[in-house]
Amino acid sequence: MSSAPAPRRSAAQLAAGDVRPSASGMPVVGMVGGGQLSRMTAQAGISLGLSVRVLTRGVADSAAQVVHGPVVGDELSYDDLRAFARACDVVTFDHEHVPPDVLARLAEDGVVLRPDPAALLHAQDKLVMRRRLTELGVPVPRYAPVEDAGEVEAFAAEAGWPVVLKSRRGGYDGKGVWVVAGPGDVPGALAAAGPAYVEEHVALTRELAAVVARSPSGQGVSYPVVETVQSDGVCVEVIAPAPALDGDRAVEAETLALGIASALGVVGLLAVELFETEAGLVVNELAMRPHNSAHWTIEGARTSQFEQHLRAVLDLPLGAPTLTAPTVVMVNVLGPDDPDAPSLGSGLPHVFAKDPAVRVHLYGKTLRAGRKVGHVTALAEAGEDLASVRERARDAAAYLRSEPE
Amino acid sequence: MSSAPAPRRSAAQLAAGDVRPSASGMPVVGMVGGGQLSRMTAQAGISLGLSVRVLTRGVADSAAQVVHGPVVGDELSYDDLRAFARACDVVTFDHEHVPPDVLARLAEDGVVLRPDPAALLHAQDKLVMRRRLTELGVPVPRYAPVEDAGEVEAFAAEAGWPVVLKSRRGGYDGKGVWVVAGPGDVPGALAAAGPAYVEEHVALTRELAAVVARSPSGQGVSYPVVETVQSDGVCVEVIAPAPALDGDRAVEAETLALGIASALGVVGLLAVELFETEAGLVVNELAMRPHNSAHWTIEGARTSQFEQHLRAVLDLPLGAPTLTAPTVVMVNVLGPDDPDAPSLGSGLPHVFAKDPAVRVHLYGKTLRAGRKVGHVTALAEAGEDLASVRERARDAAAYLRSEPE
Repeated sequence: MSSAPAPRRSAAQLAAGDVRPSASGMPVVGMVGGGQLSRMTAQAGISLGLSVRVLTRGVADSAAQVVHGPVVGDELSYDDLRAFARACDVVTFDHEHVPPDVLARLAEDGVVLRPDPAALLHAQDKLVMRRRLTELGVPVPRYAPVEDAGEVEAFAAEAGWPVVLKSRRGGYDGKGVWVVAGPGDVPGALAAAGPAYVEEHVALTRELAAVVARSPSGQGVSYPVVETVQSDGVCVEVIAPAPALDGDRAVEAETLALGIASALGVVGLLAVELFETEAGLVVNELAMRPHNSAHWTIEGARTSQFEQHLRAVLDLPLGAPTLTAPTVVMVNVLGPDDPDAPSLGSGLPHVFAKDPAVRVHLYGKTLRAGRKVGHVTALAEAGEDLASVRERARDAAAYLRSEPE
Repeated sequence: MSSAPAPRRSAAQLAAGDVRPSASGMPVVGMVGGGQLSRMTAQAGISLGLSVRVLTRGVADSAAQVVHGPVVGDELSYDDLRAFARACDVVTFDHEHVPPDVLARLAEDGVVLRPDPAALLHAQDKLVMRRRLTELGVPVPRYAPVEDAGEVEAFAAEAGWPVVLKSRRGGYDGKGVWVVAGPGDVPGALAAAGPAYVEEHVALTRELAAVVARSPSGQGVSYPVVETVQSDGVCVEVIAPAPALDGDRAVEAETLALGIASALGVVGLLAVELFETEAGLVVNELAMRPHNSAHWTIEGARTSQFEQHLRAVLDLPLGAPTLTAPTVVMVNVLGPDDPDAPSLGSGLPHVFAKDPAVRVHLYGKTLRAGRKVGHVTALAEAGEDLASVRERARDAAAYLRSEPE
C-alpha cells in the first residue's frame, strides 16, 4: 500500500512543470478563493473532465473541503497568486478582492486572467462602475464622489434625504452601504466607509437581476431575468423568472446586461443587479463571477451558471440558459441566530421527509448568524403555482436552520 | 503561506481519531473503488455537505482526480479496507469485487457496510442470485450449475442450442459471458469461465432496467423503467422512460425490483437488468450500486441516482425519482478504436457548438478502445420527438470520440 505524495501544496511549492493536463485533455482552471462559489464551480467542473484548482486561505474553507489538492495561500498576495497561476492555464475568481495593482502585475507576467483586470475593475470599484455606465448611457442612480460631509450634504440638498453612502470597494451582502437619513448621520457613515461616493435613495418597486455570460470569442447568453428578495441588504430569495415581469422590460434588462458585458469586455459571468422603479430600470451593482442570484440555475436551467462560467473562461461554446421548469425558487440558508443551533445536517431528515423534490445545497461552512451557509431550490411541478413553490423552498430553508416557520 | 499536511494518505495512516465530522454535521461516507461511479457519487455528495472518502488503487483513477484526500490502497484487501473504514461512518461500494470473506470480517468488526455482505452476495455470485430469485418466484432464464462439458451438453439437450455459459463471479460489460453455439465450443468456454453455470439463450424483444433505491428504514423508491441498448454486451444507450412500454408491464418491473430489494435486504441502489420477451419479463442481472442504466437521472430525474444512493446508505428519506423531461436519452462515450485519437476534450467545442443543450460527462479516464470514458445526456425540449433526442445524444458521443456519424 503506497503513501502517495501530498496534493495539497502551498502555492510556493507549485512550479510550471507541475502542470499535468487532465486525462480529458482539458486546460487547467485555477479559481482564486475558497468559498461556496469555488466549491460549486469545482463541482460543475467534474462533469467537464476538469479538476478545478482552488487557491484558498485555509483547508477548512468551503471549497477546500471538496476539491483535489487545494492550494493554501494568501489570495491577495502577488507572490502566492503568481505561484498558483504557474500551474494553471486560466485563472478566474470567486470574489473581487484581489487588488488591481496585483492583477496588473499578473497580467504583465502573462497570466491569463478571466475576466481581465480592466473589466474586473468595474466590479471592484463602484465609483469607476458608475462613471463607466453613465458614459455608456446605462441608467444608474444619481451619484457623486464625496470627500467630506459638506459634499454629502450638498448632494442631498439636490437629491433629497435620505441618501445612500457606499464604500467604493469591498462591500457585499449589505456591507459597505449606509442609508443616511440626515446631516447628523453623515460623519459616522463617512468614517466607516473609507473612500466612498453618495447616491440617491431610489424609490424601487422591487429588485431584479440579469445574469449573462460572455466568452473571449464574444459569444453571449442571457439567463431569464429573476426577482431577488433582500432582507437587511442580504439576498434571501430568488424567483425565476421574475413574476409578472413585462416582456419588453425583460428584453430591456437582458439587452442591458449583454451590452454591459460586451462594452466592458467581460469574460465569464456578469450579474447585473437592477432596481425596478415606476420610471424603469436602474443598475445597482455588477459582479463578474457566479452569483447568488443564479444559484437556481443548478437545477433550474439547462446549463448551470457554474458550468457556464467555466465554459466562458475556457472559450468553449456557451450552454443553453433555458428554464427546466416554469418556475424556480431559491432560498438562501442563513446561519441561525441561536449560537447553539444544531448542525444543518440534522435538519435534513425533516426537510427530505416533508418534500422529496426539494434540492438542498450545503456549503460546509461554520454556522454564524446571518452567514450564507447553504441554499435550497424548489422547482414547480406540473400545475403548481408560485405560492406553493415559494412555500416549499422557504420551509426547507427554515427546517435546515432549525427554525421552522 | 503555510504548507498544509497531506490529505491523500494511505489507508494504514488513517486512524479512528482522524474522523472529523464535516462542518455540516454529516456522517462520513466511504466509497470503495476509484471509478466513475465513485467520481459521480462524490460530486453529488458535495451538495449534501458531504466530503465522500474514496479508497482507490491509484491517484490517477477517475474518482481520485476530483475528490479531497483520496486514500490509496488495495480495494480487495482486508487490512486496507479495515484501515479505510476506521475513518468512515458508513462504507459503500462502486463495484462488487470485494471478496465475501473479507466483507464478513469487516462486518464482524462492526464496520457499517451498505449494502451488507448478505445482500451484496447476490450481486457478486450469479448462481446464488439465480437460486434466490427462483426461491422468490421471480422469473429468471432456465439455468443449471455445471462442472463439466457433459453437464453443459445435458442442459442444452433440454433447453436447446445455443446456451449461455456465465462465470459465477467478476463479469461486467459482457465479460464473463459466452454464447455457446454447440458442443465443440463448450470446453474452451468452460476453461475461460472458471466456476460457472449455464442458462438458456433467451429470445428477447429488448432489454430493460428497473432501478430502485431502498433505505435501512425500509423506504423504497423506483425510477421509471428504461430501455437499455447493448452492443457486444456493452450498454451503449439508455432511453428513459422505455418507449411504448405497456403500463402494466412497467408496474410489474418496478414492483419486481422493489420486491427483490426488500427480500434481499438491499440498502442503496438496486439495478435489475431485465429481458423483455413475448412471454413477459425475465431477470438477467442485479447490481447494488449506482448503475450505468441510471446515469440519465443526473439531469433527467429530480433526484440523481448518485444522491439517491447516498441518501439511502445514510438512511435519509429518499428523493423524488420523477422525470424532469418527457424523454431522456443517455449515450455512453466509449474509448475510440483509433489509438491516436485526440483527447475527448478536443471534441467539446464541436459538441457544444452544435448542441448548446446536450449534457456532457467526462470521467478523466485514459482512452482505450471500447472503455466507458464518459457519457452524454439529451433531454427532450418542448415538442421534440424521441428520434431527435436520440440523434442529439448519439451525435454528441460520436463527436467526443472524434468519429462523427
